[in-house]
Amino acid sequence: MWLNGKEISLSGGRFQSCLREIRRRARDFEDEKKGIKIKKEDWEKLHVHIASYNNFPTAAGLASSAAGFACLVFTLGKLMNVKEDYGELSSIARQGSGSACRSIYGGFVKWCMGKKDDGSDSIAVQLADEAHWKDLVIIIAVVSSKQKETSSTSGMRDSVETSPLLQYRAQTVVPSRVLKMEEAIKNHDFESFAKLTCADSNQFHAVCLDTSPPIFYMNDTSHRIISLVEKWNHSEGCPQVAYTFDAGPNAVLIARDRKTAALLLQKLLYYFPPHGKDLSSYLVGDKSILSDAGLHSIEDVEALPAPPEMKIHDQKFKGDVSYFICSRLGAGPKVVTDESQALLNSITGLPKGA
Amino acid sequence: MWLNGKEISLSGGRFQSCLREIRRRARDFEDEKKGIKIKKEDWEKLHVHIASYNNFPTAAGLASSAAGFACLVFTLGKLMNVKEDYGELSSIARQGSGSACRSIYGGFVKWCMGKKDDGSDSIAVQLADEAHWKDLVIIIAVVSSKQKETSSTSGMRDSVETSPLLQYRAQTVVPSRVLKMEEAIKNHDFESFAKLTCADSNQFHAVCLDTSPPIFYMNDTSHRIISLVEKWNHSEGCPQVAYTFDAGPNAVLIARDRKTAALLLQKLLYYFPPHGKDLSSYLVGDKSILSDAGLHSIEDVEALPAPPEMKIHDQKFKGDVSYFICSRLGAGPKVVTDESQALLNSITGLPKGA
Repeated sequence: MWLNGKEISLSGGRFQSCLREIRRRARDFEDEKKGIKIKKEDWEKLHVHIASYNNFPTAAGLASSAAGFACLVFTLGKLMNVKEDYGELSSIARQGSGSACRSIYGGFVKWCMGKKDDGSDSIAVQLADEAHWKDLVIIIAVVSSKQKETSSTSGMRDSVETSPLLQYRAQTVVPSRVLKMEEAIKNHDFESFAKLTCADSNQFHAVCLDTSPPIFYMNDTSHRIISLVEKWNHSEGCPQVAYTFDAGPNAVLIARDRKTAALLLQKLLYYFPPHGKDLSSYLVGDKSILSDAGLHSIEDVEALPAPPEMKIHDQKFKGDVSYFICSRLGAGPKVVTDESQALLNSITGLPKGA
Repeated sequence: MWLNGKEISLSGGRFQSCLREIRRRARDFEDEKKGIKIKKEDWEKLHVHIASYNNFPTAAGLASSAAGFACLVFTLGKLMNVKEDYGELSSIARQGSGSACRSIYGGFVKWCMGKKDDGSDSIAVQLADEAHWKDLVIIIAVVSSKQKETSSTSGMRDSVETSPLLQYRAQTVVPSRVLKMEEAIKNHDFESFAKLTCADSNQFHAVCLDTSPPIFYMNDTSHRIISLVEKWNHSEGCPQVAYTFDAGPNAVLIARDRKTAALLLQKLLYYFPPHGKDLSSYLVGDKSILSDAGLHSIEDVEALPAPPEMKIHDQKFKGDVSYFICSRLGAGPKVVTDESQALLNSITGLPKGA
């Protein structure tokens, strides 16, 4: 397997679990056009070349492993003609990376805790697809692409073992919040959606802090972004933007609509202007949000007014954000039929351009 | 009243509560030597000049208001010949600043929650005086003397109103920890003392983070100091140093003995060397700890080896700590009889040197 062009080992237990479970479910495969026929029992003898490209920073707490494992499991399932049961694929992906079970789907997805000891019913279900709430716009501030000190998997294990607050959170707080969140999504109720998102992100990080030794995923830049959003939301009287932080310092900001996202970007760029002169590479993904925000050049950024709701205007934090990503709710994994988009050369079986 | 030489207003509700409660308890006062006699009912008509000097940074989350209010209440109590009931003085000081109720005493002090609605039984009691555990040495890293955004009083009120974890912490976690802490102090059990201190500091900040909007008292520098201590404690197999953070980014570090404190100072100064060339003003309080650590000049600091237990050696954080304070467990407020130490000129009634 090649990840982002670099050969990597699949010997780790998490990879091996996924490969074993997919192999167990392999079926006869036939492509009459290409004259390929692989019998169920032959999959055991075959080697598979895998090339993956992940445009999210690796191990920075932005769920890059969730995306990667969901894609791996889905793709191998397609290749080996595994029965299309998304619940089962979800359960296999979970063995690669917990949250990968959600990334099998697009849109809004719920990870059900399950009741069985073996975890086989701990799977994800889709609440609504990506077309359900089209107004939402996501802006991610990539605060640091340094490898984090604590992996989300080992961090969560430490919290379960040592945080006195975690059990209370899991048993008492989360279940009722999940129900409220389902309602909020169903009704496009941005106010509830934002309040629940922010409160639960903060409580997750509170539990990390309550772990021994304590886990700090957020840093001063994360705190500054939260303050900015909180003060803006407060000054508007109702939430404009929700924030959530995964196992890292990067802020995932969800704006209620595109106009709000453009305003948010102005505020963010006021405090976190690009370090170089190149505005375009400072925002990846949907770059058209820059035009919406009236930002065509670095001079436009420099001319931005201070957000009036903030008390402290005199300090800027150039260099504290690596770059921003602008996106929308996405779809789940899908088969790309255009062979020119394949990462492997179909003749050599090696990554293209290698 | 003059605080640190600057005239301040006493019109605030917290000051007024303390003044009213002390005045209510004023009694006849007589100093035969000086020929002074003040009748109980005359206190109402007199003005009092107060000068206070606080060598802790103000409003930086280092309990400067606790020290100040305890001193104010104790001193006015002495002046007005109030009956020496420390419990009652404690309860009055609490109305100035919650934790001031503890600062009426020296050594180890417990703040009892109390049961009455009017809070009158929410007072502090001394568990052991400052002579009980003489080995302990305190090093404080003053991370920032900027005024903090959230006062500890309003922050605590917000947490009570909005944090779902606070009630669980207050009802379930804290009571058993208080009992364990009393045992640890009684038995000079540093391991338990340190584990409880660190865990409870982290949980307090977890609850701050679980508040809406979230409160961040600790910053990246605080996190780095925690990591340093946690890794050292882990590598030694048992705690050498406890850390605790109040409503601010400053680290209060408690070393098990003086030798450990000297080692701790070496590690701290490796990562946080003084910004200027003057080592002596970078450590206030008991400066003799510098000699114990073999640090006589800035060159000695520059020659310090990297702490072997730390993974990341290549980065230093000059300027992130303003200065260090070295101290021991102190006594409570006391009357200073040497008039040359008075802050007010006994002839003019104005601050000396004003």
